[in-house]
Amino acid sequence: MDLKIGDTFTITREITDDLVRAFAEVSGDHNPIHLDDEFAKQTRFGRRIAHGMLSGAFISAVLGNEFRGLTIVYLSQSMRFTAPTFIGDVITTTATITAIRKDKGIVTIETVCSNQDGAVTVTGEAAIMVMK
Amino acid sequence: MDLKIGDTFTITREITDDLVRAFAEVSGDHNPIHLDDEFAKQTRFGRRIAHGMLSGAFISAVLGNEFRGLTIVYLSQSMRFTAPTFIGDVITTTATITAIRKDKGIVTIETVCSNQDGAVTVTGEAAIMVMK
Repeated sequence: MDLKIGDTFTITREITDDLVRAFAEVSGDHNPIHLDDEFAKQTRFGRRIAHGMLSGAFISAVLGNEFRGLTIVYLSQSMRFTAPTFIGDVITTTATITAIRKDKGIVTIETVCSNQDGAVTVTGEAAIMVMK
Repeated sequence: MDLKIGDTFTITREITDDLVRAFAEVSGDHNPIHLDDEFAKQTRFGRRIAHGMLSGAFISAVLGNEFRGLTIVYLSQSMRFTAPTFIGDVITTTATITAIRKDKGIVTIETVCSNQDGAVTVTGEAAIMVMK
């Protein structure tokens, strides 16, 4: 696998109610803004939103699946949550290689999630080390 | 709920095989380093490791559960993965308030995961906005 700057990988997932409830179970995050319609109605969002870190899980999937031919070490991840994600949204997660340090095998990757309307919901950056 | 600098919240979770497989399903990250013993034996880790973002999910749980009396907006999260997490590890995730901007309702939180031996596996920082 020969990585180069500009290489882009994407996955698209629908935010179903089942997925949000499964993430609540796995994470242990049972905040009612994600799970309780009545509670969520009272908030600024007006309805339930997905866990922000569910988008983090999608970033994990892009990196973990697209680089699966290589052994990589996940060094760091930053995320800015720029817009809420609602049940029924279809989220595309895009990872684009922005820098490669060949001497250290460190690859920097821009990670962006956007919804079906093109609105960006998460921006951030990953760093991975590719093992020889 | 009256937040102040130094307030600390923690959760502890065991990294079971079931949990790692459930995270693989939810995230869609099926990298064999998390799921395949034979593959993992060939890597520098010598055995399967948990997804780094599973620790991100634990951070979500600390923030989502401990602040559940408040409506919060997750603004950002950074994570540095400083050591691997193995099946059978017991991970304590600690969130400590380090700064409060009362005018904007923005709270900065140091987020750290550590294992049963006290080794730090993830460091990072969250920013949340507490809604009035």
